[in-house]
Amino acid sequence: MTIDLDTLTKDLLSGDRRALARAISLVENGGPQATQLVKQLYPQSGRAHLIGVTGSPGVGKSTLVDALITQMRKANLKVGVLAVDPSSPFTGGAILGDRIRMQAHTLDRSVFIRSMANRGHSGGIAMGTYDAVRMLEASGYDVVIIETVGVGQSELAIAQAADTTILVLMPGSGDDVQAIKSGIMEIGDIFVVNKGDLPGANKTATDITASLELATFSNDWRPPVITCVAETNEGVDKVWEAAKQHREFLQSSGELKTRRKSKVQAELAELVAGMARDNLKTALETPGENQKMLSQVVDHEVDPHSAAETLAKHLFGGASKQ
Amino acid sequence: MTIDLDTLTKDLLSGDRRALARAISLVENGGPQATQLVKQLYPQSGRAHLIGVTGSPGVGKSTLVDALITQMRKANLKVGVLAVDPSSPFTGGAILGDRIRMQAHTLDRSVFIRSMANRGHSGGIAMGTYDAVRMLEASGYDVVIIETVGVGQSELAIAQAADTTILVLMPGSGDDVQAIKSGIMEIGDIFVVNKGDLPGANKTATDITASLELATFSNDWRPPVITCVAETNEGVDKVWEAAKQHREFLQSSGELKTRRKSKVQAELAELVAGMARDNLKTALETPGENQKMLSQVVDHEVDPHSAAETLAKHLFGGASKQ
Repeated sequence: MTIDLDTLTKDLLSGDRRALARAISLVENGGPQATQLVKQLYPQSGRAHLIGVTGSPGVGKSTLVDALITQMRKANLKVGVLAVDPSSPFTGGAILGDRIRMQAHTLDRSVFIRSMANRGHSGGIAMGTYDAVRMLEASGYDVVIIETVGVGQSELAIAQAADTTILVLMPGSGDDVQAIKSGIMEIGDIFVVNKGDLPGANKTATDITASLELATFSNDWRPPVITCVAETNEGVDKVWEAAKQHREFLQSSGELKTRRKSKVQAELAELVAGMARDNLKTALETPGENQKMLSQVVDHEVDPHSAAETLAKHLFGGASKQ
Repeated sequence: MTIDLDTLTKDLLSGDRRALARAISLVENGGPQATQLVKQLYPQSGRAHLIGVTGSPGVGKSTLVDALITQMRKANLKVGVLAVDPSSPFTGGAILGDRIRMQAHTLDRSVFIRSMANRGHSGGIAMGTYDAVRMLEASGYDVVIIETVGVGQSELAIAQAADTTILVLMPGSGDDVQAIKSGIMEIGDIFVVNKGDLPGANKTATDITASLELATFSNDWRPPVITCVAETNEGVDKVWEAAKQHREFLQSSGELKTRRKSKVQAELAELVAGMARDNLKTALETPGENQKMLSQVVDHEVDPHSAAETLAKHLFGGASKQ
């Protein structure tokens, strides 16, 4: 099906929700029309505050996001939410359940919530998410929340794609210890101890604070540790306040540009890697030397690493030598 | 540190466990020496029966693997286990706990259990796993079990890398419904309903069987649905029997070669994509046109897709046109 991209672009720029939904579906699936749409809308993107919210299943990420939306709406901001499903058939159900909890905002025309469940897109989930953020920005959304489950590399990558990453933990889960041990602390710009009414909340917050005091930072931002009860909105205003402060820090320090540059670099790397993958696919489907090489690997005459080097030479030409 | 690869190769081929452990660490981390080691040992690989065991957290995958090892040891087979950590700082602890449950076999010199917790390797977790399997095969292991948590794309990819994939479910988790809905059924060669002593086990097994009757298959294998209680070994012999039958089917039908060919294709695609990523990194670190392009994307003058196309042309030369 061919989509009328000019109409879609016009409708999306005017804030039409159906156009936005269609545009996100398009970029999620990828293809030449998706690329064309992103090209047309890219100049209108890059304006929103991108907030990543990540943490283990069950810590209350969706409840916190829900409460944060309420805060942002008080400031009359348009809020987009991209809930990134780790593409798992197993957790699909649970995540759908989470979405239902956000129903408080479904009638609010200035809130747009979307689950991303994108498999098969060249370059993985992250690519579609980058472009979906752009669609929201072009459509006038001031804040885009990217909610991910803290499992797997691609989800961490998405969290890192945000301007401000909120790491959500809960008391007594042992997450704090894990986070401290594994170096995950580094990705958090703001630490939230949710379910702060549970026993051990103070200890969890103290442990995180103590370990942050020992950490070294690449810039002048010191991640705050905020205890809240998202369920009752208690303390959520402080989380939102910290997010705004972090954004101001990013802008005044020049860090925003640094972060966005490394984000673009990562995206370009994935796009180029995807093109290499596509080139190889074509090469292996065409009878000839490359196809013979594949058979030799299958027959254990040539190892995959040597074969890949030769194939890369064929595909990349002299450039691979640089 | 430079490793004496010839000694390592010799020791590994003789079945030395320390050499095997070192070799797996080496290929997990990647690099020129790792590539060299794989090249040297590749002719000795490809012999083992690769069994993937996957399913949601908590269904008892590790317990089943433990019980399966007991079956395999009765047949005097050498068994390697690669437990693939989804690289999550959050679940790291839990998975470590699972490993501890396999202690029954730690004194058995014909069982080698290894957790793969590999971040940062170019091409992701899967690459290191492919090569780790090869190390186990070269070291004389007859069966290699790849245990993954059924969350995320890369873990599914690893499950698909196996010859025989066992999908583990449990009664009342709703996993069966999710599995049926999402098309995950297609990756299972054998379905195991574990914790078969829990209420609802029969219904779960019946539901899966019914949905398999409606499914279409690309070959003549009809996945069996086996109820077991891994904790007490009840029914685990039937799971192992089914795995052996599946392997026989793969060999007699020629399907084994087809599967291994598509596996090699996927691996080559990832290796080549990784090389493209590395090439791009070098190009963007070198002052010149490519670096200027990066700045233009950051400044929203050029969109990432157009930039990637231009960069790919620079990197791949004329070959990208094929």
